[in-house]
Amino acid sequence: MTEVSPDTIQNGQRVLLHLDPRRTWLVQAFSDSKSFHTHAGIVEVGSIVGKKFGDTVTTTLGDKISLLRPSTIDYIMKSERRTQIVYPKDFSYISARSGIHSGCNIFECGTGSGSLTTYFSSLVAPNGKVHTFEERSDFFEIAKKNVQKAGFSDQVSFQNVNLLSAALPESYFDLAVLDTGDPWLQLDLVHKSLRGSAFLFCICPTTNQLEHIITSMEGLFADLESVEIMFRRIEAREGKTRPSMRMIGHTCYLASGRKLNKAEA
Amino acid sequence: MTEVSPDTIQNGQRVLLHLDPRRTWLVQAFSDSKSFHTHAGIVEVGSIVGKKFGDTVTTTLGDKISLLRPSTIDYIMKSERRTQIVYPKDFSYISARSGIHSGCNIFECGTGSGSLTTYFSSLVAPNGKVHTFEERSDFFEIAKKNVQKAGFSDQVSFQNVNLLSAALPESYFDLAVLDTGDPWLQLDLVHKSLRGSAFLFCICPTTNQLEHIITSMEGLFADLESVEIMFRRIEAREGKTRPSMRMIGHTCYLASGRKLNKAEA
Amino acid sequence: MTEVSPDTIQNGQRVLLHLDPRRTWLVQAFSDSKSFHTHAGIVEVGSIVGKKFGDTVTTTLGDKISLLRPSTIDYIMKSERRTQIVYPKDFSYISARSGIHSGCNIFECGTGSGSLTTYFSSLVAPNGKVHTFEERSDFFEIAKKNVQKAGFSDQVSFQNVNLLSAALPESYFDLAVLDTGDPWLQLDLVHKSLRGSAFLFCICPTTNQLEHIITSMEGLFADLESVEIMFRRIEAREGKTRPSMRMIGHTCYLASGRKLNKAEA
Amino acid sequence: MTEVSPDTIQNGQRVLLHLDPRRTWLVQAFSDSKSFHTHAGIVEVGSIVGKKFGDTVTTTLGDKISLLRPSTIDYIMKSERRTQIVYPKDFSYISARSGIHSGCNIFECGTGSGSLTTYFSSLVAPNGKVHTFEERSDFFEIAKKNVQKAGFSDQVSFQNVNLLSAALPESYFDLAVLDTGDPWLQLDLVHKSLRGSAFLFCICPTTNQLEHIITSMEGLFADLESVEIMFRRIEAREGKTRPSMRMIGHTCYLASGRKLNKAEA
Repeated sequence: MTEVSPDTIQNGQRVLLHLDPRRTWLVQAFSDSKSFHTHAGIVEVGSIVGKKFGDTVTTTLGDKISLLRPSTIDYIMKSERRTQIVYPKDFSYISARSGIHSGCNIFECGTGSGSLTTYFSSLVAPNGKVHTFEERSDFFEIAKKNVQKAGFSDQVSFQNVNLLSAALPESYFDLAVLDTGDPWLQLDLVHKSLRGSAFLFCICPTTNQLEHIITSMEGLFADLESVEIMFRRIEAREGKTRPSMRMIGHTCYLASGRKLNKAEA
Repeated sequence: MTEVSPDTIQNGQRVLLHLDPRRTWLVQAFSDSKSFHTHAGIVEVGSIVGKKFGDTVTTTLGDKISLLRPSTIDYIMKSERRTQIVYPKDFSYISARSGIHSGCNIFECGTGSGSLTTYFSSLVAPNGKVHTFEERSDFFEIAKKNVQKAGFSDQVSFQNVNLLSAALPESYFDLAVLDTGDPWLQLDLVHKSLRGSAFLFCICPTTNQLEHIITSMEGLFADLESVEIMFRRIEAREGKTRPSMRMIGHTCYLASGRKLNKAEA
Repeated sequence: MTEVSPDTIQNGQRVLLHLDPRRTWLVQAFSDSKSFHTHAGIVEVGSIVGKKFGDTVTTTLGDKISLLRPSTIDYIMKSERRTQIVYPKDFSYISARSGIHSGCNIFECGTGSGSLTTYFSSLVAPNGKVHTFEERSDFFEIAKKNVQKAGFSDQVSFQNVNLLSAALPESYFDLAVLDTGDPWLQLDLVHKSLRGSAFLFCICPTTNQLEHIITSMEGLFADLESVEIMFRRIEAREGKTRPSMRMIGHTCYLASGRKLNKAEA
Repeated sequence: MTEVSPDTIQNGQRVLLHLDPRRTWLVQAFSDSKSFHTHAGIVEVGSIVGKKFGDTVTTTLGDKISLLRPSTIDYIMKSERRTQIVYPKDFSYISARSGIHSGCNIFECGTGSGSLTTYFSSLVAPNGKVHTFEERSDFFEIAKKNVQKAGFSDQVSFQNVNLLSAALPESYFDLAVLDTGDPWLQLDLVHKSLRGSAFLFCICPTTNQLEHIITSMEGLFADLESVEIMFRRIEAREGKTRPSMRMIGHTCYLASGRKLNKAEA
């Protein structure tokens, strides 16, 4: 995945068709693809092959559709979901705060719909890996499909088990993320599997979970931090710029800390 | 930089000493380092060499200081600054939305104090590069030093020139970031240098800049988006959890779009 | 309106039927009222007369409905609207910052759907008055009806005219509120009609309006202030408290200042 | 207090001297007042008497100072404090949501520094009253002084007692506000003293208090609501409008409900 994709759209390549922010389609372009019907007219998907990313095509009704290279977030926002996903505003902060990069090994539990799995696998490629645990087999199957579609299967080790019955390597991971309802139950296990000073992040929808996990992390982790990230779209238009009237009021709090090698203390 | 650093603190390695969130020090540990005086007592820095990241040391006054592996953000927050820096909440969203990863080539103007340069160079290593332009030689020198301290000099091409007099490769960059007061002046130049469908992000402190750049980007870029990210710390404590009383009210708006190959249109 | 309403529900009195936050009905209770059909069963409205505010009645399906005394905001939120209304978070700040109270005389243009008119008339009663101007006759008629329903017609002087052709008293009002698209056009007129040191508030949906009006107010008004108020609901529940996932991202900015007696300066 | 104050500054009247948002002084103007020294030069306070509110005076250094009529919020923000006060963004919402107006009777515990007491007494004048309870005699004395300075002593009944040992009238108050650390302890007492359907508001700095009081209010109160209000200043300036960099991140949550006449249920 670290090689950069070519600009010319290849047969079988995925393309994000972009009409406007609310009407986008993630399609796989084959030269013999059927045409694609939209409210804005018909798009000849077969004709896309051989064009370049950044080109536009015109529908039968005269609307212009941009041919965009799907970004990792496009794959995530278009993925199949059975769960509340982790949103870009949140996973982007986790990755930046923890400083993960190519070559890192990451632990995640649970996989959910694989949103965070997908993004983190894009960052650790080609030599790093995301080890992700999901107990529910239905979520597990969907997440695998979502990651595969985004092209990152080689960077992910999926495990469909209850974490507490899994064998984890010791002092191994560069980052651990717990997106479970009761992260304090997995805390000792995860603490052991982290390298010294490595970050743990817990995704907490409620203030109760946040308080419980932060108090549980005291002594085991240093540099404890709890944050909330709010994201607001702005409608920037000539002479009438204003924030959007609707926004997401809350997704989760993020609790984090850096492993202390308690055993030596 | 993609090799993972060892857990044992080497002679000459940088370490983040963490007493509490407000009292942290980024030091370089040599076995013959002098001791370090703090309000919490004296730290024998020389004795740190050979310990492990995640260990703690005790000051002469009995306070525990954690020995943390500096993350990219630690380097950034401890860097020398002459300018308003781009904050983690903002650059993390830019990197996630644009999907940059190991191997990408990134364009940046201006360098400022090198905050964004540092973070992006950590993501594109080992084969990608950040090409950063800064007209002011005083900022240029400081940014170079900041990136070097963080260990990413090999991933950055610094240019101390006025962008408008620079020769840029065509259809080359996977992401461009403009952090200048008048990004519309650099828009054509940057548009040409981006690969088709690649992201441009503009960092806009004011609503006027935001409105001006977004209207200038129309037609040249698809998927235009303007956002604002708010970041709030939570004081999570047993029985008395509450958001922090102080927060940063505003840093900047982020305007973005994906290059359209206008020439063909 | 300053006499306090009795606790026993009178024939013909308005009552807010409250099943849950999303299912409330503002009804007028007559002893011969027809029964009222809801998804939660049938409510015998006639039987409400003679009960007390704060009592509950049971529907035919066994759900409990609370009988609440309509507050001013209940009337506003249930009013007929053709326009974007001014929301409680915004008009409450205007009234508190400007310190209006019983006896004050308030100027408003335009009336819109009468949300602010209704609230302010409740505060200035019994001797103060809201003088409100609305050019559009359709809005004018609806606002009159809305204020009447809330019981404050005696406190409001409605004028269905273009403000610029109206004769305003000089140095008279204790507060002026402009909720027009181009408040700078009415600025001189309004300035004259305010008492010295009295507040002007302008309701500005866009940053462009905010910037334009504030720069226009310089020199004419002291203590210029621009603010934005965000309102977030919290779902407080045992063991799982969290902010609501949805919130309103923006209604308007509020620009304000206090009249300087320019003529003497 | 419902009579409107005259525009000409009387001997002994209080005036807000306004140089800029950070430099304002609340003074009492006597014709024999001494001059007032500021960084912007000397102000002859005696010369203010006989001028009008909205006039300006010039300091010996040539700076203009506006003579403003103190609003209720000015008195509050200039009051002596020993406690965290309730802020305008919060008490303005309480008053608007509960719909209090001239003639209402309000219950408050504890008085604290009297911020809410002062504002509410300005709204209920001339015939309504705020009954406020404060156990600590030092707070009690300061609050009395603050309310007196603002001119609302006639509207306030101060009680320096522990609420639990006080005799409260039954079904009497139009609004109750609890600003105590443990409002659930006063809940039954306050419930009894409220008129049917009247609002109770509890001021909760922490999520724990919010959750505790809301769950305690279930069954006793209808229309339960928990909200948080965020307030952000905007720096509106020609060509460079932007939100302020600093803002208050949190003051409190507001929990509210309307009394159910439990006895009959």
